[in-house]
Amino acid sequence: MFSERLSRLQGSLVREILAVANQPDMISFAGGLPAPEAMPKLDFNGLPDGLSQYGPSEGEKWLREAVAAEMSKNGVPVTADNVLILTGSQQGLDLAAKLFVDHDTPVLVEAPTFLAAVQCFSLFGARFVEVGLTPNGPDLDELERKLKSEKPRFAYLIPTFQNPSGVCYDEATRQRVADLFDEHNVVLLEDEPYRELVYDQCDRAPICSRLKSAPWVHFGTFSKTAIPGLRVAYLACHPSLMPHFYKLKQAADLHTNRQGQWAMHKLLTSAEYPAHIARLRDFYHQKRDIMAAALDKHFHDLADWTVPPGGLFFWLKLKADIDSYGLLQPALDRKVAFMPGKPFYATDRVSNELRLNFSHASPDKIEEGVKTLAEVIRAHLSAA
Amino acid sequence: MFSERLSRLQGSLVREILAVANQPDMISFAGGLPAPEAMPKLDFNGLPDGLSQYGPSEGEKWLREAVAAEMSKNGVPVTADNVLILTGSQQGLDLAAKLFVDHDTPVLVEAPTFLAAVQCFSLFGARFVEVGLTPNGPDLDELERKLKSEKPRFAYLIPTFQNPSGVCYDEATRQRVADLFDEHNVVLLEDEPYRELVYDQCDRAPICSRLKSAPWVHFGTFSKTAIPGLRVAYLACHPSLMPHFYKLKQAADLHTNRQGQWAMHKLLTSAEYPAHIARLRDFYHQKRDIMAAALDKHFHDLADWTVPPGGLFFWLKLKADIDSYGLLQPALDRKVAFMPGKPFYATDRVSNELRLNFSHASPDKIEEGVKTLAEVIRAHLSAA
Repeated sequence: MFSERLSRLQGSLVREILAVANQPDMISFAGGLPAPEAMPKLDFNGLPDGLSQYGPSEGEKWLREAVAAEMSKNGVPVTADNVLILTGSQQGLDLAAKLFVDHDTPVLVEAPTFLAAVQCFSLFGARFVEVGLTPNGPDLDELERKLKSEKPRFAYLIPTFQNPSGVCYDEATRQRVADLFDEHNVVLLEDEPYRELVYDQCDRAPICSRLKSAPWVHFGTFSKTAIPGLRVAYLACHPSLMPHFYKLKQAADLHTNRQGQWAMHKLLTSAEYPAHIARLRDFYHQKRDIMAAALDKHFHDLADWTVPPGGLFFWLKLKADIDSYGLLQPALDRKVAFMPGKPFYATDRVSNELRLNFSHASPDKIEEGVKTLAEVIRAHLSAA
Repeated sequence: MFSERLSRLQGSLVREILAVANQPDMISFAGGLPAPEAMPKLDFNGLPDGLSQYGPSEGEKWLREAVAAEMSKNGVPVTADNVLILTGSQQGLDLAAKLFVDHDTPVLVEAPTFLAAVQCFSLFGARFVEVGLTPNGPDLDELERKLKSEKPRFAYLIPTFQNPSGVCYDEATRQRVADLFDEHNVVLLEDEPYRELVYDQCDRAPICSRLKSAPWVHFGTFSKTAIPGLRVAYLACHPSLMPHFYKLKQAADLHTNRQGQWAMHKLLTSAEYPAHIARLRDFYHQKRDIMAAALDKHFHDLADWTVPPGGLFFWLKLKADIDSYGLLQPALDRKVAFMPGKPFYATDRVSNELRLNFSHASPDKIEEGVKTLAEVIRAHLSAA
């Protein structure tokens, strides 16, 4: 009765954990939820009646122009014609999967990578080719070898404050990755939801800005910096890909909601927006440092990690070789939620890693939650 | 470099014609655009800040409850648990295609049918099985024969003010269609975007309300009665299908924009909404009658048609056996836009039919446009 692809349709563990994590007495390090208190105020005053009608599939021109200006400032010289407004950047993954993925299409991803991308590409039949991450970005020898041997149709990378690892590719790695993609003419899907959430100095120039010939798609969103509930995000891409994305967007939902585009544009171009971004960085920077201190105190003998220079997550590798999935229920029983490492890998494996979000919990809850989580792990280890 | 499905990705002729039809001096009978002057005023006053955060994939509970109450009133006794909020009902087609359509999957559709459904199902590889329409609904003998011989995985039907034909299935046909679907256990996708736009007495009880065992999905939208720019629509379905749609929605765009859901719910539950719907019906009823009169005057010897009891379109069959596609450019040259019949058929054919929308143009432009279109056709016929 159903399509063949249904056998590959997975639920989202994040969403299931979030359902539990939303209980009021739970300390949640599980999701990637922005802090509500750091969100700008939405203002629909002055909304033009004209936006009630059906709108253009590519999105509103003024918003596409604002996105193009911002991307140009970041080193990717695009115009509004290269920009497509999306109903959240998850939709960009769906459209890209439709454009590129058949059954058994090789798709290169980082290991670990964003689990919703894995779900989305899986649904369309992707065969994953994984490349390991170092603190400076992907293992370049492995990347080169796999580009040659596996000939992936595209690579999906999150170079800036990678989810879940927190890694920010350094400048030399960005350049080498670009050179390799040009050499092998592999399409680059570059996802940058976290690029504005920067706390320490690091190179953030998009890799697509360094490409000479390889086709590319760049995904961006306002969900991490402004209002996720609006579902307004965007992609910019190589001109050759735009006509396809345009038609795929049309077939997916005609166009993105216009009131949300308008409200987001109003925010984005307001005089206060740069100050909002600066405050947001300070706020999350402090939370990151609070979690770093709590981890130093409670996890120094339990796990290894690097302090992420941006983004929303710590990625912990336990010193003990245990399955972190087994820690989830005991942690939830103690009212702490986190994400085990396993679902962040495109191919099946056991992981002794944990992803901890630091943006959502309050400072005192961060300390309390990290302490409790360490207790849960110690109890688990001594019971084993 | 691209997926195999890309070869089946079509642009939307409607959208291309609409781009031309949007010129200010054009009289457009092409799209299915609601009249802006008949749209209710959007009001975001009182929007809760809490809706800025990520929301539930299935949609907001209060909106799902309002939809379920409305559907129950219409004879489909569902609860909020059977309802999924969509980013426009086009998204429902995309999710259904993902759920049901593989390469060469037989899909039963009316001939003619909604062209964006054809595009969407095509993209996923559907093989179309067409059933002709009579003034009372599908040809029942043909439907029974094709359900038996072609074993379609689902049927996509628009029983109420069908697009493009304007047909409203009568009661006996609705019951017989339901019986046939139960007998052959074929999934029914019932699309009802126009059901509230009723001008003459006719049976509108959803066919899914008559099903005893066959699985079903019912699509509804607020785009034709309220605010298309919001991109808020819904599906209700058989309980067995909901978990799949939920996960597919999650993978497509996480959830529908919450501000739009809130504003639509505020409209829908306002004291003024029933009066708005009543005014809208009167307004379009008048326009329909104006177009009917203009057609009587200018097309009586050129075409045959039935006055549609609801919806947004007249469907004209020319008496001459010519390709109505050939009339499009001459009509656009005279500043009148319409939709030729051809793209409304799932399989390739020549059509001497035209779809004329009567909701968007002003009354005097309707008369002028119909007159001009008749002149274009007469000139075309005498030149041939």
